[in-house]
Amino acid sequence: MNVTVRGQIRHYRTVTFDYRRNAVLLIEQRLLPHKFQIVAMRDFRETAGAIKDMVVRGAGAIGATAAYGLAQGAQAFRGRDLAKFSKHVETVSKTLKVARPTAVDPVNAMNQVRAAMRPGETVEEQQVIALAAAEEFANEDVRYCEEIGRHGGKLLRNGMRILTHCNAGWLAFVDVGTATAPMYAAQRQGKQFHVYCSETRPRSQGATLTAWELAQQKISHQIITDSAAGHLMQRGEIDLVIVGSDRTLGRTGEVTNKIGTYTKAVLAKRHGIPFYVAIPLSTIDWDLKSGYDIPIEERHPSEVLGAWGVAETRNPKPETRNRRTYVRVANPTSGARNPGFDVTPAELITGIITPLGIFQPRELWARREELGFAG
Amino acid sequence: MNVTVRGQIRHYRTVTFDYRRNAVLLIEQRLLPHKFQIVAMRDFRETAGAIKDMVVRGAGAIGATAAYGLAQGAQAFRGRDLAKFSKHVETVSKTLKVARPTAVDPVNAMNQVRAAMRPGETVEEQQVIALAAAEEFANEDVRYCEEIGRHGGKLLRNGMRILTHCNAGWLAFVDVGTATAPMYAAQRQGKQFHVYCSETRPRSQGATLTAWELAQQKISHQIITDSAAGHLMQRGEIDLVIVGSDRTLGRTGEVTNKIGTYTKAVLAKRHGIPFYVAIPLSTIDWDLKSGYDIPIEERHPSEVLGAWGVAETRNPKPETRNRRTYVRVANPTSGARNPGFDVTPAELITGIITPLGIFQPRELWARREELGFAG
Repeated sequence: MNVTVRGQIRHYRTVTFDYRRNAVLLIEQRLLPHKFQIVAMRDFRETAGAIKDMVVRGAGAIGATAAYGLAQGAQAFRGRDLAKFSKHVETVSKTLKVARPTAVDPVNAMNQVRAAMRPGETVEEQQVIALAAAEEFANEDVRYCEEIGRHGGKLLRNGMRILTHCNAGWLAFVDVGTATAPMYAAQRQGKQFHVYCSETRPRSQGATLTAWELAQQKISHQIITDSAAGHLMQRGEIDLVIVGSDRTLGRTGEVTNKIGTYTKAVLAKRHGIPFYVAIPLSTIDWDLKSGYDIPIEERHPSEVLGAWGVAETRNPKPETRNRRTYVRVANPTSGARNPGFDVTPAELITGIITPLGIFQPRELWARREELGFAG
Repeated sequence: MNVTVRGQIRHYRTVTFDYRRNAVLLIEQRLLPHKFQIVAMRDFRETAGAIKDMVVRGAGAIGATAAYGLAQGAQAFRGRDLAKFSKHVETVSKTLKVARPTAVDPVNAMNQVRAAMRPGETVEEQQVIALAAAEEFANEDVRYCEEIGRHGGKLLRNGMRILTHCNAGWLAFVDVGTATAPMYAAQRQGKQFHVYCSETRPRSQGATLTAWELAQQKISHQIITDSAAGHLMQRGEIDLVIVGSDRTLGRTGEVTNKIGTYTKAVLAKRHGIPFYVAIPLSTIDWDLKSGYDIPIEERHPSEVLGAWGVAETRNPKPETRNRRTYVRVANPTSGARNPGFDVTPAELITGIITPLGIFQPRELWARREELGFAG
């Protein structure tokens, strides 16, 4: 999407490939929203490091990064020995996989690239195919998000006030995003609307990433605390909720997403406000039988006990300007619980916006073949 | 309540009077939870300044501070001229009142002291009465909170997990507090329970003040984000909710309290978890006919866009140790909305815990005479 750099509006993807330098180019997301910078990963180990160290985050974005990283690693191989090449590619793939061991997207992305490489008869052929397949994976990710926008954009009407939570924006994908896709589509159609970004404690992705995206895109928006949505709904100031999802259960229509999503859904139901979840098909889990079977990761208490931000100093030294620091907010002798995700049941969800259209959460299973379930 | 200072457990009130020095002694609440310090206000102007600058905050605490401040001002008068004395007391009263112009508690407290002074026939007599009346006001505040504890403590059973929001603890009153009173009472009875303090963004009173209180009192507790309560309720990990209130409508049973309270009440209702509000009778508003008539104060956006905390530096200089700094968390080009309070309707409230017992929110009006409504 658009980013204004030194007064110039330019289009960026979160991940692209520099063919001349065999480098993966990434937006350094750890500096956002305070600084925008593109960084070049010059070999597959650096690319794996970027995934591990959260330079890049978000399902689609780390998938494409791993796909490019695999092609980058393949490209660096010198020689014609197919067996040695194959062993090398295996090493590259493992290195990229262990960079984020719990994520499924890098694995799926690399499987897609490796499947495409198989018919290549020489090392060089396979190298060329790998790059093309990685490029295709990234383009597919963008197309899926655009389709989500095409379907979801119809839900937005002039004057609407939309609530979103966390970041399911273009920074989490290659471009466009999922929860934000309907907003960007509606904006292109000239619709006027206002977005409330709930800050999404403890890591504040709503206040940092989503707000930054919307500001760059010149979409009218304001940040609110996670506690304020209920009050705004009660006073009739929210018309629509759109969020993303980390995992949607195909059998039950339950949605796993960032902690706080369930609360928004309960409030929306009480106030008769439509609650939509925007997802790419790759995040549908066709196996699990109940949301209660999803283990909810307890993250480090320090996230709850403090906050990361930029200190407002009158005359900051150049080297510390925009540098984020951690401040301890809470009582120093108290501990915290920090569940990272929650599960929203199907009954609270008005619809699931997918690249193939909008579905009732409970009809996913009946229409599973259409939605690409291979089992 | 108890505070451990240099290894010694001592009992403190938020406000007391030093007769020898004619000074109002306050806990410097702006330093909490990072530092505990008692500060002496040596004349009524300093006392007014402490109210204005939030050295002391909370309904009961600023009421008692104003009562003591009035007595302190009266005490400082030299001479026997009753007319001049009366004019002086008027100046003292006005100075203390404008320190927090929207608060009703200082006004009520000072009216009580001045009514008591009236029968005094000499300046000296009135000075003595003023101090006794201020002392009586503070003691009454403590007794009311203890009665709330006596009634509310019965709701707590062994093993319970209790959620509270914001700070309606002893720091907001002279001692004991309202939402915390049942916890302190149950602790004295030897009951075991666990408290979840929701952090209460944007000012984090739950993570700072309530957590500090409970830690000092050695009550088992953990801080959670405001978004986590829904998930914990869904997984059956919360048994009871107790919060305070800034204003409860006697005619409708609606409760105004810190932003986020309404959300907790909606979640509690969905999960069949009892939701109680603990209040002193002085916070019942017998006039207003609807919660929608309560103007909801929009506070400064900077509260939402950042956080106050202590930077974790390896070797802090002594003068900056425990000093709180503001960090900007959010995207710098985004704005925020910051409603300070919300209104919870009677249908979501299981009971109102008062010094006179526990009432259904809708029976307040019918029992208004018993509850001290003079109209």
